[in-house]
Amino acid sequence: MNAPLRGVVPPLAVPLKNQEIDVPSLERNLNRMIEAGIHGIFVLGSTGEVAFSTAQRRGEVLEHTMRIVNGRIPVIAGVIDTETSRVIEHIRQAESYGVDGVVATAPFYALQGMAEVERHFRLLHEATDLPIWAYDIPVCVHTKLPPQLLVQLGKEGVLAGVKDSSGDDVSFRFLVRMNEEAGHPLQLLTGHEVVVDGAYLSGADGSVPGLGNVDPHGYVRQWDAYQRGDWEAVRAEQDRLADLMTIVMVHGVQGFGAGVGAFKTALMLMGEFESNEMPEPVQALTGENVEWVRKVLLKTGMLN
Amino acid sequence: MNAPLRGVVPPLAVPLKNQEIDVPSLERNLNRMIEAGIHGIFVLGSTGEVAFSTAQRRGEVLEHTMRIVNGRIPVIAGVIDTETSRVIEHIRQAESYGVDGVVATAPFYALQGMAEVERHFRLLHEATDLPIWAYDIPVCVHTKLPPQLLVQLGKEGVLAGVKDSSGDDVSFRFLVRMNEEAGHPLQLLTGHEVVVDGAYLSGADGSVPGLGNVDPHGYVRQWDAYQRGDWEAVRAEQDRLADLMTIVMVHGVQGFGAGVGAFKTALMLMGEFESNEMPEPVQALTGENVEWVRKVLLKTGMLN
Amino acid sequence: MNAPLRGVVPPLAVPLKNQEIDVPSLERNLNRMIEAGIHGIFVLGSTGEVAFSTAQRRGEVLEHTMRIVNGRIPVIAGVIDTETSRVIEHIRQAESYGVDGVVATAPFYALQGMAEVERHFRLLHEATDLPIWAYDIPVCVHTKLPPQLLVQLGKEGVLAGVKDSSGDDVSFRFLVRMNEEAGHPLQLLTGHEVVVDGAYLSGADGSVPGLGNVDPHGYVRQWDAYQRGDWEAVRAEQDRLADLMTIVMVHGVQGFGAGVGAFKTALMLMGEFESNEMPEPVQALTGENVEWVRKVLLKTGMLN
Amino acid sequence: MNAPLRGVVPPLAVPLKNQEIDVPSLERNLNRMIEAGIHGIFVLGSTGEVAFSTAQRRGEVLEHTMRIVNGRIPVIAGVIDTETSRVIEHIRQAESYGVDGVVATAPFYALQGMAEVERHFRLLHEATDLPIWAYDIPVCVHTKLPPQLLVQLGKEGVLAGVKDSSGDDVSFRFLVRMNEEAGHPLQLLTGHEVVVDGAYLSGADGSVPGLGNVDPHGYVRQWDAYQRGDWEAVRAEQDRLADLMTIVMVHGVQGFGAGVGAFKTALMLMGEFESNEMPEPVQALTGENVEWVRKVLLKTGMLN
Repeated sequence: MNAPLRGVVPPLAVPLKNQEIDVPSLERNLNRMIEAGIHGIFVLGSTGEVAFSTAQRRGEVLEHTMRIVNGRIPVIAGVIDTETSRVIEHIRQAESYGVDGVVATAPFYALQGMAEVERHFRLLHEATDLPIWAYDIPVCVHTKLPPQLLVQLGKEGVLAGVKDSSGDDVSFRFLVRMNEEAGHPLQLLTGHEVVVDGAYLSGADGSVPGLGNVDPHGYVRQWDAYQRGDWEAVRAEQDRLADLMTIVMVHGVQGFGAGVGAFKTALMLMGEFESNEMPEPVQALTGENVEWVRKVLLKTGMLN
Repeated sequence: MNAPLRGVVPPLAVPLKNQEIDVPSLERNLNRMIEAGIHGIFVLGSTGEVAFSTAQRRGEVLEHTMRIVNGRIPVIAGVIDTETSRVIEHIRQAESYGVDGVVATAPFYALQGMAEVERHFRLLHEATDLPIWAYDIPVCVHTKLPPQLLVQLGKEGVLAGVKDSSGDDVSFRFLVRMNEEAGHPLQLLTGHEVVVDGAYLSGADGSVPGLGNVDPHGYVRQWDAYQRGDWEAVRAEQDRLADLMTIVMVHGVQGFGAGVGAFKTALMLMGEFESNEMPEPVQALTGENVEWVRKVLLKTGMLN
Repeated sequence: MNAPLRGVVPPLAVPLKNQEIDVPSLERNLNRMIEAGIHGIFVLGSTGEVAFSTAQRRGEVLEHTMRIVNGRIPVIAGVIDTETSRVIEHIRQAESYGVDGVVATAPFYALQGMAEVERHFRLLHEATDLPIWAYDIPVCVHTKLPPQLLVQLGKEGVLAGVKDSSGDDVSFRFLVRMNEEAGHPLQLLTGHEVVVDGAYLSGADGSVPGLGNVDPHGYVRQWDAYQRGDWEAVRAEQDRLADLMTIVMVHGVQGFGAGVGAFKTALMLMGEFESNEMPEPVQALTGENVEWVRKVLLKTGMLN
Repeated sequence: MNAPLRGVVPPLAVPLKNQEIDVPSLERNLNRMIEAGIHGIFVLGSTGEVAFSTAQRRGEVLEHTMRIVNGRIPVIAGVIDTETSRVIEHIRQAESYGVDGVVATAPFYALQGMAEVERHFRLLHEATDLPIWAYDIPVCVHTKLPPQLLVQLGKEGVLAGVKDSSGDDVSFRFLVRMNEEAGHPLQLLTGHEVVVDGAYLSGADGSVPGLGNVDPHGYVRQWDAYQRGDWEAVRAEQDRLADLMTIVMVHGVQGFGAGVGAFKTALMLMGEFESNEMPEPVQALTGENVEWVRKVLLKTGMLN
């Protein structure tokens, strides 16, 4: 990555067929997203089923993505795993496919303090020349990355940026302000697709919207409006995207199964994915939940 | 309240002297806030030491506030307590002082489900003709109020509004959208002084900034900019207020002692409060923490 | 209290009729418990609806209890409230009824650190000559009291004992060991009625079983077996009481409504209480949940 | 495993030297534990650094352990990872080394509901003939396994047992009672080394004490006392072991670094391990923390 990563960088959702990657669907939708004008793609994130992916599956995702993207946009790859040594293995793999950057969370499963978190990121940086994005996602790893630590690591060149999925917009504002005061060493992306407008107003450099798999055009239009300072257009687009996001308000299913499950179901109903299959042990949405997604798509103009 | 409550409605901080209300300081700063143009005042909130206040203290706060305000702006009062019957006692007291509305949280201490939370608000409404604001503050009461329930209670006239201190900007956006679709029955105020701009962009009807005790002019200027659609001014004001909010980043003190402690210390340094005394068992900020507050005030132009 | 409080000290459940205390039922069951041999009674605890009780209701509970008990066993009273000044008001009230000790939690609602918790207990001790029991109940107050602090306050005479409802048996074992090493300044009671045997094996001085309202004889038999070192009898009694405790495994109701709701329902079915009415906004168990309680009572020999 | 696994089954701690396994130390201490009379060994648990171990490291641990144990006691292996497909890979690896059983947690990182947890264990069972132990460790995976589900899976032959590190002794008692009523399909082991006596009183079939790496003889003596019904000996041994466990009460280090860090430090001071090195990014205990461990070892007679 010669230039900093800015703009709309969706986390790639992975279509499945009998628990294998459905490559034609992957290619179709990724091309649609690139043609819509997204500025980068983030593979093997939470949306991208990283937690469900063996080393082989990670390799397949990387291989197909690099081939399809073919240099049109930067590709950053999740190297998410429990502890440092395992994350470094994923970095090696990602390097071998020629990605433009990697995204790592704080360690998880084994309980630790902030000194270990800091050392973790430093060790990752020693292990690679690739730019590293810290992925702040306490709902998954149960550690909140403090703005002070992030900016310090940015100033030292350990981190290139942050993907903020912390759900803490107050902390994000402080992060932006501290980063600004430090000369903007970190590229700051928000992962909250429902309030990207507020993040842009806070000073975010871009967004990583899972919903961008479904409506990349909306997020690109919103970014363009932000670039020209048309805040009323930014918020109006966000209102529409927030309404679209209600596809995840399904019944009897929680978390990943509801969120990514709804994205895949929408893409199936829109004809981009062949099915809404989910990785085991998660089950695809069915019945009234599929109808709910369809209803929201119709209401928001994504389906006719 | 004949008209809906909109705009800047700070939660009143209470100056103390030997654990009694310092009335001259209270009067001085409340008048300063009103003259700055705030649109209402919220007494006996978390900032207003409601959890530390006996019935007598609650009465004193109400009496002094009503006398000083003297009808210039609406007054809404926290009636926060563990369960329904105790909250109704506080409502009776607040009614007796002629407040314009009351603010109640979900029940806390005894563990319950959402059916009890809903019934709680319905029973409060049966007990009073005053407009009721639901106070969504899971960090204190450990229950998040779901947008669907809030809008339903709004449509039925049980609730007049919501003070959102949930720290969940995604949920707040959904709340705004559902409220809009229902015809805007609820007045929606954000309690997060660091990201008021994002809340306005989301569609908030106003804000309840604790930091508004320190810099009411800033929040009023921000509101005015919002009213005329000048988003660059809204965000620039917010950036400055976010920088000012770093007064709370003190060492060795947490939560209420840090937050309200820093507000009171700032007001002392600015000459509005005589001291930064805190209610027992909380101790006032001292030493390097006071110097930190002073440093931030100087840097942000609140002190010369 | 001239002698230390040891043995079985149930938290008194309060029968209601049209939201008022059902005095004949209260008297009937309290006498049954005393005649069964309980060693003390704890009024206005979580089970005793303290969070639902106005000052007047607290007074009524204290008055009826002191009259009925009439010196036969020690009475300790919950003085639970959000912060120090309010707790001291409850201490004054409890003192006026002649109770033998008071039980206070860490402050709650306003977020604080451990320095404030420590100062809170010290201020309570300065305010009264009554022995004070710290009530460690993080599920309600969201602060875990550290064993080191508790033993320190015990050594200084600030605390007389601890009622442990922390759900943390590892911490409780450490507390017992530290207390032993310090010369046993604290009387340690467990609040977990399902594993009283393990707490006795750990070295607890007694128990505060909510289920003791339903089966006081069982807990007294268990205590007697403990006193004579008959551990097989202690565990066998506990197994039976654990089976009885499954009355709380009702459907669609959580927390207080399930737990105290099941106790009241059992007492109603056993003819001790006239109804299983709960304090607003909690609703009494009905239908299949009542049948579930009946089924467990039949299976465990509490009903024929 | 022809017979059910009962008794003392410590989770093997792994000595390191320059981030590689220190095989002589591993062999020395594992032989000491077997000679002390432990009834099985659990490799690649939380104590066994599973979260820090690449596939290669997992293989090394399995290979060395199987060679050293050489059939003297059963070996069960942690196959802990984020989701089903990755866990099945670890099962394949463990099978290839001839282990006697595997231990799996609920899925983690990706948020899910209980339906996915249940399906996860069913899929693991379909994938292997080895007995499967469910590892209930919410502090790491943030899901509590409900007793009802565990017993149901036991009755169906999906699970062979449970390693309970839930910290919830009430739930464990209910699990024991439900398992008993179902005919004891599950072997139930407690992971809480400080309250093993209470777990035995509750009806546990054995224990998995991390501290058993340091003092295997104590836990074996305790088990023998339990087998002959000498509860006073069981509790006295536990009191001593609880005092020994205070080695983990170090300063400035949390969680894994404090717990396993203290175990390794004790083994170093006792001459069993060559160093107390920890896996990156965790640092070994140093200075006053080492002295603290030494002081406790001296006080409890583990060092002279």
